This record gives sequence, C-alpha cells and structure tokens, in this order.
Amino acid sequence: MFTSTEIFTVRLSEDGQAVEIIDQTLLPNEVKFLRLETAETLYEAIFGLRVRGAPAIGIAVAFGMYVLAQQIPDNGGFYAELLRLGNYLISSRPTAVNLSHAVKRMLSAAAECGKEAALPRLYEECNAIYNEDRAICRAIAENGLTLVKDGDGILTHCNAGALAASEYGTGLGSLLLGKERGYDFHVYTDETRPLLQGARLTAFELFRAGIDVTLICDSAASMLMRAGRINACFVGCDRVAANGDAANKIGTRSVAVNAKYHGVPFYVFCPSSTIDFDCGSGADIVIEERASEEITEKFFAERIAPEGVKCFNPAFDVTDAELITAIVTERGICRYPYTKSLAEMFGRN
Amino acid sequence: MFTSTEIFTVRLSEDGQAVEIIDQTLLPNEVKFLRLETAETLYEAIFGLRVRGAPAIGIAVAFGMYVLAQQIPDNGGFYAELLRLGNYLISSRPTAVNLSHAVKRMLSAAAECGKEAALPRLYEECNAIYNEDRAICRAIAENGLTLVKDGDGILTHCNAGALAASEYGTGLGSLLLGKERGYDFHVYTDETRPLLQGARLTAFELFRAGIDVTLICDSAASMLMRAGRINACFVGCDRVAANGDAANKIGTRSVAVNAKYHGVPFYVFCPSSTIDFDCGSGADIVIEERASEEITEKFFAERIAPEGVKCFNPAFDVTDAELITAIVTERGICRYPYTKSLAEMFGRN
Repeated sequence: MFTSTEIFTVRLSEDGQAVEIIDQTLLPNEVKFLRLETAETLYEAIFGLRVRGAPAIGIAVAFGMYVLAQQIPDNGGFYAELLRLGNYLISSRPTAVNLSHAVKRMLSAAAECGKEAALPRLYEECNAIYNEDRAICRAIAENGLTLVKDGDGILTHCNAGALAASEYGTGLGSLLLGKERGYDFHVYTDETRPLLQGARLTAFELFRAGIDVTLICDSAASMLMRAGRINACFVGCDRVAANGDAANKIGTRSVAVNAKYHGVPFYVFCPSSTIDFDCGSGADIVIEERASEEITEKFFAERIAPEGVKCFNPAFDVTDAELITAIVTERGICRYPYTKSLAEMFGRN
Repeated sequence: MFTSTEIFTVRLSEDGQAVEIIDQTLLPNEVKFLRLETAETLYEAIFGLRVRGAPAIGIAVAFGMYVLAQQIPDNGGFYAELLRLGNYLISSRPTAVNLSHAVKRMLSAAAECGKEAALPRLYEECNAIYNEDRAICRAIAENGLTLVKDGDGILTHCNAGALAASEYGTGLGSLLLGKERGYDFHVYTDETRPLLQGARLTAFELFRAGIDVTLICDSAASMLMRAGRINACFVGCDRVAANGDAANKIGTRSVAVNAKYHGVPFYVFCPSSTIDFDCGSGADIVIEERASEEITEKFFAERIAPEGVKCFNPAFDVTDAELITAIVTERGICRYPYTKSLAEMFGRN
C-alpha cells in the first residue's frame, strides 16, 4: 500500500507481455521499475533480491509463468516446456515456499491443456494468486489492527510491508490500514543488519505512506522498550512451526526476548500458508547462512535510508542491575544486589 | 595488549610535547598514529572517536592537560586557564566519567601552584593515571579469568580491549591474559552498530592477538545463546550507578536481556573509578544521542572488518513460541500455547 499509485511492488504489464517490478535493490536512493520478459531476467530479479518477500516472489513467478507461456511455440510439448521453465524459476530461491507453491498452482492450471486452452486458465490463475494475496493481507491487517490502539508506539524488524507482498503486506499491514483510518502510530523500525531492509525498505515505505517512522539500530530497541516507548512489536515471518516457533529475519528472536523481559507484546504476522504443520518445532528449521562479506564489507549505496527519515541514535544504554551477573573491578567481583555489594567492597557503608 | 610493540592506544610523546594516539577511526584498514598538541585537536580526537574507551580517554586527557599546561603563558592565571581547558575537554563527551575524573585529578595536582611548580606535579600525575590504569587492567583481567574456563565461548559487545584502555583493557583483559596462559577461548564479537567498534576494533585486536574470534551482527547473539555457544558475556562499561545499573555502548542492554533469558552469565568489567556512587540508578545517567548520519549513511572505509576474520552470518533465526504473544493470520489471532491454538484454528486436531 503506497500513497502514490506510481509505486507498486509487482504487477502484470498492461499488455500482459511482461512482469513489472520495482527494483528493491536500488531503494531508497532510486525508484526504478523493471520490465521482465524472459525467464532469465525473472530468475535474476528473484535471485538478486530485486523482488523479495515470500508473497511478492510467489506473485512475480505466477505472472512470469503466464508471460513465458505466451512465448512457447505452439507445436506440441507446451506443458513440458512450462514445467521446465517453472523448475528453472523455482531454483532461483529454493527455500522460498511461496515460490514453488505458485509454480505448482500455475502448472496445475495448465495441466492436460494445449497452449490455446491453457493461456486463459494461466491468466486467471496468476490473477487469482495476486488477488488472494491482497485479500489475505487485508484480513491480516484487520486482525492486527484489533491488537493496538491509536497513538501506540510499534517496533518492527526487517520488512513485512507492501514491498514484500501485495497492497498492505503482512506485519506492516495493520499500520497502513490504521493510517487510512486516522490512527496515529509511532513506528520504530530496526535497520536490520546485515542487509538493512528496515532502513532501506520499511523506512521508505512507511515514510512514503505518511506514517511517523523512526529508524534505529537493531540494538537500540531494548532501551526504547525500557523507556516505555514501545507498546507492541509487529514482525513478519518466513515459517511457523506447529508449536508456534517462528523463523524470521536474523534478530527477530532478540526483539522477542527483549519484549518478553519488558512486558511488551510481540506479534507475528503471516498468511496461514506460512504455518508448516509438518515441522514440529523451530529445531527442525534449517537456517540459511550467508556470505561473510555482508558483514565485513561496505553497505549498500552511500545512503542507506531515505532522506529526511527520523532517526534515534543513542550512543549508550543502561543495563539493569538485575541483568548483571557480576561487576568485575580491580578490587574484586561484586554480585547482585549491588547496592549492598558495591558499597561494601568500596567502603561506602 | 597487542602482540606487536609497534601498536599502542595512547601515550605521551618522548619529548612530552604531544599526546600520541592510534587513529581508531581508520582501523582495521589503516594503522596511523596522530600527534595531538592543541586543545582543539585533543577535543576533536575524543569527540571524533579517534581515541575512545573510557579509560583511554581519561589517559589521553591527563596527558593532554600536561601538554597544554606547558603552553600556558607564565603570566598569572595559570590555574584558571588550566581549569578552562579541562572543562573544554570534558565537554567533548558527556557520558564518560573517566574523562572528568582525570581532569579533576590533574586540576588537583596543579591546585594552588604557579606554572613552574605545577608542571612536574602534572607530569607525575598523568603518568600516575596511566600506570594506575595498567595495574587496574591487569587486576581486572586476573579477576575475570576466575569466571571462565578453557574452551569457553564468550560474547563481547563494542570494544573494551587494549584500544579502550591501557595494555590489557577491561572486558577483553581476561581473554588476552587467558591467551597468554594457554586458554583457548572462542570469542564472538558483536559488530556493534552504528560505529562498528566490534567489527573494526575488537575483531582487529583479538585477531592480532591470535585469539579465535568470530564476527556477528548484533542481532545474531540471541541465536548463538540459544544454541549453547555462549558461556559468558564480557562487556566493558562507561558508568556504573550505586545500585549496579551500568551504562555502556548501545546494545549492551539487549545482550544482557538475552543472556538473562538464556541463562548465560553477563559480566561487566570496569575500573572502580567507573562506579559513580553519587548516581543512585541508571535513571540518573544522561545518554548521549548522536547524529542520524551514523545510521543513515555509510562513512567508514570500504572494509569494516579485518581481512580474514571469521564471520557467522545467519539470515534468519527462530523465535521461541513462548516469546510470541500472538500469531496473526488472515484466519484470526492465535495465542500461546500454539500447538493447541494453531491446530484448532486450522483444524489439525
């Protein structure tokens, strides 16, 4: 959900001959749209994170299958070629469940058809995938809006907005919907190292929607909770196990632990397709490890957040005494409670 | 404690006319030393974090006061001018107590003296501050070494090593001392956004000392604790209140909350001068807020960690179900325990 209709995440071109996406790798510094007409450019756009977010990838691939289907020569072997193209696209990000799900749906729609019969079915199916996602995102947003109230401070991590899905997105959907209804939220977005989706995408998206958004380093969330500035945490999710363990962008767990300690509710937003009942708990979820260079080398472009975005950049924070196991000085080791142990060790009684 | 004697953090020049420091803003890409001879360059070096770490700043200012004292014209008003210079230097960084502490000691040494009598006292006092810090760091390191054992995994945040103090440093002192005694620690260092002292300085320092060090994004610490890889957290500190609340680099609190949740001991290392008995609790500590550009723009060199340093870069983590207040889907809102609520909502019973 962007305030201007000029912006969109993924759509079928008007002539139906291409998938159009905003290039998310260039945000927030450049708003550039790409027209993807071949299997290779679709693959590269997904692999290269130009379009990302599990639902958005699914939609892009669904539209892509329709676009590519039209290019297949009508001389037999239509379905076999569509299957080959689908498997090729799945291999661009093998772990994203929405991607293979979308390909399977498109293949089912074209099953046992020649090209002529398949094309209208494929057109219908890709639009169904898109429209279902819109309806799901809207329903999630409505549900989430019941959990907060006007004026709340809300912390989010990574990007679970319109850029990751259709229209409203998941984790940010309630905030965008609330904005439409006149709610005044104060949103804090973690920058989300290492790839800075919070700084580059969430700040861009919420800022553009006219929502009060403040960018923070991931590690600053704890002191904001301590200061009572956060009423709820809203995050998206990549996979939910049957017991509720939720895999999401690195750092989500740390937000949740801090929320628990500070008595702040921590909400996970996801389409039900994200719930994997075959996965008993988080222990069964394999975590992708990525290149060291994401940490050790330069960030993205010169600017990593939109011009004019509010920031909160405290240099220090305070760790509560009860969290400290011991304070080690040259005089010795003090233990909790420190009002007593420090005073005793340093003769302040 | 560096493995090569070529490296030092802060010292008085041989001719006594300047404070010499390593420019920490250029690490790990360039090892460059600066000669600081004026109040303005000292102020800038502290404000600009070329020299940082509470004890190192105290030492730099103590040496600096001696250097500047020699430049004061010997025509009366010596002490008043020294006082003015001291207050000016204190204003470079408000949170660090060592800075004002060092200035106060230097002023006391020069109290009720003319320039001629004051200079030898100032020389003695700044060297005393330096040598005391060395002894203190060694004592802290010895104390801390009793808290861990060979083979332990240790998480650290920011930089509390030799680059932040003299010789051994505070939070890293035990690790450096342990290394000398043949202990094999597995150290994980948070990169420490926004200024990346962990990536740039701690990784540099421990890597150079031959200690097994792995760089992580701040937000990845939680999953390492969950995986049982962290036996203890070692951090330095800028100020400890009388009740034990400890102010340190932004993010320290988040580490502590995570450590508490995971049952990992969290140790604060500091010279006793860091304990501010006039400060009842952390609520009385003013937290420095810094420029937005530290978050929104890139400003360090291309490389932000030493070549060859080990990294751990998981893309996702798993949030335990018990930390999640609710899971919001298009079908509705599920609450803990999820094994029951998810199954019920999605008819898996």
